[in-house]
Amino acid sequence: MDYVYGPGRNHLFVPGPVNIPEPVLRAMNRNNEDYRSPAVPAMTKTLLEDVKQIFKTTSGTPFMIPTTGTGAWESALTNTLSPGDRIVSFLIGQFSLLWIDQQQRLKFNVDVVESEWGQGANLDVLESKIAEDTAHTIKAICIVHNETATGVTNNLAKVRKILDNYMHPALFLVDGVSSICALDFRMDEWGVDVALTGSQKALSLPTGIGIVCASPKALEASKTAKSVRVFFDWNDYLKFYKLGTYWPYTPSIQLLYGLRTALDLVFEEGLDNVIARHSRLGKATRLAVEAWGLKNCTQSEEWVSDTVTAVLVPPYIDSTEIVKRAWKRYNLSLGLGLNKIAGKVFRIGHLGNLNELQLLGCLAGVEMVLKDVGYPVKLGSGVAAASAYFQNNTPLIPSRI
Amino acid sequence: MDYVYGPGRNHLFVPGPVNIPEPVLRAMNRNNEDYRSPAVPAMTKTLLEDVKQIFKTTSGTPFMIPTTGTGAWESALTNTLSPGDRIVSFLIGQFSLLWIDQQQRLKFNVDVVESEWGQGANLDVLESKIAEDTAHTIKAICIVHNETATGVTNNLAKVRKILDNYMHPALFLVDGVSSICALDFRMDEWGVDVALTGSQKALSLPTGIGIVCASPKALEASKTAKSVRVFFDWNDYLKFYKLGTYWPYTPSIQLLYGLRTALDLVFEEGLDNVIARHSRLGKATRLAVEAWGLKNCTQSEEWVSDTVTAVLVPPYIDSTEIVKRAWKRYNLSLGLGLNKIAGKVFRIGHLGNLNELQLLGCLAGVEMVLKDVGYPVKLGSGVAAASAYFQNNTPLIPSRI
Amino acid sequence: MDYVYGPGRNHLFVPGPVNIPEPVLRAMNRNNEDYRSPAVPAMTKTLLEDVKQIFKTTSGTPFMIPTTGTGAWESALTNTLSPGDRIVSFLIGQFSLLWIDQQQRLKFNVDVVESEWGQGANLDVLESKIAEDTAHTIKAICIVHNETATGVTNNLAKVRKILDNYMHPALFLVDGVSSICALDFRMDEWGVDVALTGSQKALSLPTGIGIVCASPKALEASKTAKSVRVFFDWNDYLKFYKLGTYWPYTPSIQLLYGLRTALDLVFEEGLDNVIARHSRLGKATRLAVEAWGLKNCTQSEEWVSDTVTAVLVPPYIDSTEIVKRAWKRYNLSLGLGLNKIAGKVFRIGHLGNLNELQLLGCLAGVEMVLKDVGYPVKLGSGVAAASAYFQNNTPLIPSRI
Amino acid sequence: MDYVYGPGRNHLFVPGPVNIPEPVLRAMNRNNEDYRSPAVPAMTKTLLEDVKQIFKTTSGTPFMIPTTGTGAWESALTNTLSPGDRIVSFLIGQFSLLWIDQQQRLKFNVDVVESEWGQGANLDVLESKIAEDTAHTIKAICIVHNETATGVTNNLAKVRKILDNYMHPALFLVDGVSSICALDFRMDEWGVDVALTGSQKALSLPTGIGIVCASPKALEASKTAKSVRVFFDWNDYLKFYKLGTYWPYTPSIQLLYGLRTALDLVFEEGLDNVIARHSRLGKATRLAVEAWGLKNCTQSEEWVSDTVTAVLVPPYIDSTEIVKRAWKRYNLSLGLGLNKIAGKVFRIGHLGNLNELQLLGCLAGVEMVLKDVGYPVKLGSGVAAASAYFQNNTPLIPSRI
Repeated sequence: MDYVYGPGRNHLFVPGPVNIPEPVLRAMNRNNEDYRSPAVPAMTKTLLEDVKQIFKTTSGTPFMIPTTGTGAWESALTNTLSPGDRIVSFLIGQFSLLWIDQQQRLKFNVDVVESEWGQGANLDVLESKIAEDTAHTIKAICIVHNETATGVTNNLAKVRKILDNYMHPALFLVDGVSSICALDFRMDEWGVDVALTGSQKALSLPTGIGIVCASPKALEASKTAKSVRVFFDWNDYLKFYKLGTYWPYTPSIQLLYGLRTALDLVFEEGLDNVIARHSRLGKATRLAVEAWGLKNCTQSEEWVSDTVTAVLVPPYIDSTEIVKRAWKRYNLSLGLGLNKIAGKVFRIGHLGNLNELQLLGCLAGVEMVLKDVGYPVKLGSGVAAASAYFQNNTPLIPSRI
Repeated sequence: MDYVYGPGRNHLFVPGPVNIPEPVLRAMNRNNEDYRSPAVPAMTKTLLEDVKQIFKTTSGTPFMIPTTGTGAWESALTNTLSPGDRIVSFLIGQFSLLWIDQQQRLKFNVDVVESEWGQGANLDVLESKIAEDTAHTIKAICIVHNETATGVTNNLAKVRKILDNYMHPALFLVDGVSSICALDFRMDEWGVDVALTGSQKALSLPTGIGIVCASPKALEASKTAKSVRVFFDWNDYLKFYKLGTYWPYTPSIQLLYGLRTALDLVFEEGLDNVIARHSRLGKATRLAVEAWGLKNCTQSEEWVSDTVTAVLVPPYIDSTEIVKRAWKRYNLSLGLGLNKIAGKVFRIGHLGNLNELQLLGCLAGVEMVLKDVGYPVKLGSGVAAASAYFQNNTPLIPSRI
Repeated sequence: MDYVYGPGRNHLFVPGPVNIPEPVLRAMNRNNEDYRSPAVPAMTKTLLEDVKQIFKTTSGTPFMIPTTGTGAWESALTNTLSPGDRIVSFLIGQFSLLWIDQQQRLKFNVDVVESEWGQGANLDVLESKIAEDTAHTIKAICIVHNETATGVTNNLAKVRKILDNYMHPALFLVDGVSSICALDFRMDEWGVDVALTGSQKALSLPTGIGIVCASPKALEASKTAKSVRVFFDWNDYLKFYKLGTYWPYTPSIQLLYGLRTALDLVFEEGLDNVIARHSRLGKATRLAVEAWGLKNCTQSEEWVSDTVTAVLVPPYIDSTEIVKRAWKRYNLSLGLGLNKIAGKVFRIGHLGNLNELQLLGCLAGVEMVLKDVGYPVKLGSGVAAASAYFQNNTPLIPSRI
Repeated sequence: MDYVYGPGRNHLFVPGPVNIPEPVLRAMNRNNEDYRSPAVPAMTKTLLEDVKQIFKTTSGTPFMIPTTGTGAWESALTNTLSPGDRIVSFLIGQFSLLWIDQQQRLKFNVDVVESEWGQGANLDVLESKIAEDTAHTIKAICIVHNETATGVTNNLAKVRKILDNYMHPALFLVDGVSSICALDFRMDEWGVDVALTGSQKALSLPTGIGIVCASPKALEASKTAKSVRVFFDWNDYLKFYKLGTYWPYTPSIQLLYGLRTALDLVFEEGLDNVIARHSRLGKATRLAVEAWGLKNCTQSEEWVSDTVTAVLVPPYIDSTEIVKRAWKRYNLSLGLGLNKIAGKVFRIGHLGNLNELQLLGCLAGVEMVLKDVGYPVKLGSGVAAASAYFQNNTPLIPSRI
């Protein structure tokens, strides 16, 4: 029997890993296979072609690495940069912090641009650094598209604009872990050089594939990048791509079939519809937070995130208690506040395979938990605000019209 | 790909088939097996012993027949009665109607006691019939414990009391399809002679096992009952019970393992806790209906059902549209109004593997649909009423304390 | 954990339930659904249309009843015949015996034509009965296409020929439980009036659907047949077919999706290729038996079965020990000898989702068990004979050429 | 539908990924979960404790890294060594070659001891190097316990003996990818400092966990090792071990539950019985090869492998054709010859969740394919030899006695 079973569904609203669609679970329910038979490469080929769509790239080269987001970060950095290279990196929350920690430990020279947690990347500082850097000592800009710890979405188009304005050749590396396939992301249009995500986020698979997509410029950089790498080396992949066998080491057969189905579901729904759905879920969540009289950790509308909302709690409440109680009483899994905002926020992940009524159930649960811990919420208030938005904006399910 | 896929979960709130717990899905995810090996009989033996608990019987003999509720009805009737036998049967909704239709087609002499749909079985009429029947021409009382079409729960203890008061020997046959393992049901205490349910109801399995439990008196009756039967014949089962091989024909291996897990989950939660959970879900639903300003089809508090609520809609609304729209827009599956109340009610099934937040998501969905079809509901009102009840009454999940 | 786990696969060679293909397991790995939504009827419609192909009928009407083969028998009989009707029925093994028992208990007047177990139906006796019956007192011929207990396949074309020769109007009812979708079966060409099978046989699903297909003449007969029936009544189905909702009671959602996939697999392989594969498996098994110096229970080549082989053991060996030992030592599930041939034969089921190497593994296992129990088999001899046949006759897998 | 479906089972005999037990498939058939809830750490704790048993260590510290064997290699090396460190490494086949390639690219100073492919590691050369190295310039010995490309098992006890004889402090790093949990492996007794395996090998899971186990000495070394590492850094894990949350980044929930079940199955069977089973499978395979008149790639009995057998084919046959044909005609997946033995050997993987009859089916298939490609094998000969061995040596399945 399972470790801790509660009757009914677990309501999974952490910002990853997220709810897996039943068709994906089915696709993964299978024995292993010989990955050197003709079947696996043939499927891999379709995956490499199709996965580009979720990055909105035609010129990019994807790598589906058996790793997590942390490994995908490492792959992005070590394939394009050499120890000592100067990077501009933005510290706006726990995940950008961890990436910066990695950058430093990988021996890059990291120029950290810090913002208050709850704010977006300070692009004014970026602009002045770029403006000053006429010698092009900055080799890369590293930015988290969506900071999962605070629910802050950065403006990537603006980053590109700054680089273009100064004709600066720095590589543009983007952590899209909690954005790609959920938020509007345009690799080619925005001139992103490396974009990456993890299978357990908006793609709604189990953890296990770090998907890294490299622009031609990034591939070019990989030829001279001196960072030591083997497992994460793109060149090993490229060698096998040429051979048509695709895999330098054993992939997870189950995840390949799962990814095949996950992509099919995205295409069936339509990527733009997927993004619009996340926009609805995000907006409705923020309306609920407002109705509860609580504040979004995100300090300005320009940065609000459609995949995760970090909710500030009053000082007399420990947000960790909210998360614990939600799980213990209502089988509701919420995200903890991390690091310097531990105890101060709880997070509602609203990304991946999720629909309106699931979110409303979650919001109703949050209301009850808020009351449980002593916050004077009006039960039903957040649900009412979110419902009103959905009732005006949710389209019919296309396949059912 | 599936026939009509929508993103996120389907919200399944028909009163059967109901949501299957993940551990049960896992248990059933298996190849076939030889049912004559030592393993299957050994497991069957534990099932036959343990399934008695959900009937609250120690003296009953269960039969796990590869059939549906309709087949379970037929098994109950044909094993205990002979053509021409007089039965008193209560017509209070679509499912009691169908059972009566079966009784008549099986050539019994059915004395139908009809109530308005929305009322319970008229036990006053029963009492007078029993009182008059000093010759004991009535061979059986057939009653649906919970009429799934109207959300009406009958008072079985009272039926027993009437029979006892008049020392009437009629068999007491109960359809517990939408009650057993969800509502308070006491086979031994209430002197029920045959009780039956289907696997796809409160046990939260797929359709495919009709579970029929016979009292010693019912077994005795089966020795002389002249109704023609083979597939449904208890004696064929009893013969194999004695041999220790248990099966007169091939059972579904998957459902046996599923039932094993379903029972384990019930026992882990505790049958009384399961019943209390259904009580909470039922109560909360009724509070929501009230908050919406709508009426329960069930006409009196004494009959309200904790497994299904039939909601009356105003005359200017077609309840069928509500059900269609819920499915098309919110991936919410509600129950239709059936037969003479088609178009007049929609039904919320709240039985089986379900918890508070799932129900609140459903209620939020119903509110939006009500608004969609022109009913001036205050969004959030039903959820608020139900939440308030849950927030006061839901215990912590025992395994997580 | 499972009841009795052994490392590696269970080698399932009973003649049903049989090995389920992985794609079918995947298709069934799903939550319940509302069977009254538009999706389930739409899928049901395709199933009713497509399932006719495995019967090779265009004029037949199929019923997919939530029951087993025994229930399918009862459905075939009660919908077409009235109590007292004269039936000619052939007793050639345990399953025909059980069907005859059912026929008698359903109050038909059964004219039993018995053969020695190991022989086919005595069609000479049939011919004389038909010839004599100028008054057409014989209402139906009931015959098992493939007797699973002895591995005997009857000649159905000849039965039709006899009826035609005498222009006899008797209904022609066929148990195709262990033949349809594995052996050559032609409902329309052979003028079969009711043909039936079970999901757990050649279709390679779990137990749970009895598929009964009725000719127009059988449907006509159902209008006047006086046998009492409700659960099995075709008319209830026909009523719902007309409404387009298809189901008089709740079907198993999982089995419907499973059947959809099972049919897709059959069509992908090609029904004729499926039949040819069974022919190879049957032939190879018989060659192995011969190589072992053992006798087939089937007494003549004209009756040999391509779905099950019953192997006679020498008098000094108890075949039950073979079956027990195969399971205990090699995780191999063989069929027992039943009834009067208990202890005298063991059975190798070679039907359903099975390929050459699986069978060879089984045959190698049988050889070792034979040696275990004291039969002086030459290890490898049966495998060699079967391999030689396969090596000459097995085509490439079409999808892999 | 699947990419290339053949009827019946795929016969998976590559030396990884291997056949997954049904109970493991079931355990993994589940939605994602919040890995920061109390449940996942609690389960992780049991895994970290129990996984030590398959390494036969009590003092080791395991890391269950979301990666493949290649990543596990990298973790072993970078956590214990600094760039420029001298390593003695043995080149005896494709996988030791790849590991050496990695060692060189990670900037170690690799002292390669090469043997002919088909021979084991040359421990005489090791001894002289160790004897000479009184200055202890050798920091580590890297050895593949079982070379999967050639089916060669090295003598690890002897390596330890050499180091001990000279009291040499070099770290002892072992690739146990195709040995641990299948061959006799004794981390503590043999003084192994880092041992590693992958989930898709003898543990019979999908690919996705690289399990690395570090001795106290290796952990000590990790404190000063200067190789750059982040994703693979043990210290990040150790930090979270102390916190009791265990995971520096998101693990695969499904693989954790799968590993839980995989370990339970190993313990239920008994690790020594698992090893004995592999010994039987290996011995039987070698007897079959001999019966076919073919040679084992492994040149001496001292090195034969119980998890994989590489079979040399006559010069007039291309072993690649054997592998292709096995897959195309018999749904049998064999291992290719790799690199310098491509075309010269094919490989039979006999590790993981496998039993006797599965192997015999495979051997029968190999025989037919050999005949297909023009090798004059006597059909049945290998099966006969293997069967004779099994029939004398296979015990009853303990749970079925």
